[in-house]
Amino acid sequence: MKAKREALISLFHAIKEEKVDSDIIDLLLLINSIKGIYTTSSCSGRIGILEEPSLGAKPLSRWLIKVHRPMSFEEARDALKRAREGLIFLKSQPPIFHVVAETIENAKLVHEIGLASGFKYTTFKAISSRFLVEINGTEYLTVPLGKDGRIIASDEYLKFAISIGNKMLERGKSKLPRLRDNFEKIKKKLGEDPLFIQLKREILEI
Amino acid sequence: MKAKREALISLFHAIKEEKVDSDIIDLLLLINSIKGIYTTSSCSGRIGILEEPSLGAKPLSRWLIKVHRPMSFEEARDALKRAREGLIFLKSQPPIFHVVAETIENAKLVHEIGLASGFKYTTFKAISSRFLVEINGTEYLTVPLGKDGRIIASDEYLKFAISIGNKMLERGKSKLPRLRDNFEKIKKKLGEDPLFIQLKREILEI
Repeated sequence: MKAKREALISLFHAIKEEKVDSDIIDLLLLINSIKGIYTTSSCSGRIGILEEPSLGAKPLSRWLIKVHRPMSFEEARDALKRAREGLIFLKSQPPIFHVVAETIENAKLVHEIGLASGFKYTTFKAISSRFLVEINGTEYLTVPLGKDGRIIASDEYLKFAISIGNKMLERGKSKLPRLRDNFEKIKKKLGEDPLFIQLKREILEI
Repeated sequence: MKAKREALISLFHAIKEEKVDSDIIDLLLLINSIKGIYTTSSCSGRIGILEEPSLGAKPLSRWLIKVHRPMSFEEARDALKRAREGLIFLKSQPPIFHVVAETIENAKLVHEIGLASGFKYTTFKAISSRFLVEINGTEYLTVPLGKDGRIIASDEYLKFAISIGNKMLERGKSKLPRLRDNFEKIKKKLGEDPLFIQLKREILEI
């Protein structure tokens, strides 16, 4: 369980440094407390405005604003003032969790509850010595707003698109309580991981 | 191989009835000619305008226009005249293939070449007695245009969004030749399926 140890250490440090989306800290702690599974990168769902130097140039893109709760029109308008070069997109993305399982049986359990909790795009991303399950929704919005600092979307349109993006974000997040309940059930089945308890005490001192 | 037999029969009939996207017929024939794998639903990539009665009500949504090549502004404007009720979205979607493999080894091969061909969202959708690999790209655009028959996007904005959607579509489709080459390599490894030859002759009479 060297990999889980490392994942736990980096999770606890991220929590300590307030780098984890606050609305999923409890859920991440729950998942990682279960024997035989742990999380790698996760996001609680977000909305924001992204500037991409050119189409598909994701590694070089930068967020003008990015929040994990609904975004206001005023916030968006202010952020757009910082647009300089490349394509400007409004993006809304559902919660996403990457869960590693050590056995195929556990991976199937996680996959099953992802789907059952309403995350319709839950898949196996890797099958090898370990299994990586991605719990993902379908509530993705990608809306071009302008180019090279020039906003082509009108204020009325921008308000409309943001309202749709906010609704999709809320719809995505609304499934989190059900996911939590389902992980509680898995925990009853697989048991608590003593390594989690030990490292949590050491790093978070609680 | 009862499942593959049924999949082949339905594919050949769909081709005969011209229900298969013409730009991927050759690729689908190639994949299905390989021993131990076959396709279920697939799409060559498309752009169009979708009307959804309410947010997320996918089963009740209807396409006002849907094409598997770039869409013109005029086509879109004409289609928008038919908008009546619910949310109106411009959608651009990359090619997508669902490939069933009978063994985990073959599934891993297919997964590997999906990723290697540039389809970055290639995943295992199901792991059971059979393995379902989804070969999928990341070039998704979902742009709200209006509501209840009223178009909120301006003509200038619509032109801009369509040009981005068309570019994403072309970027997605540009990976198809590489995918084809990679399936040719798999075919050399796994061999040709006699069932494919037999059913193709019977149904397509060629």
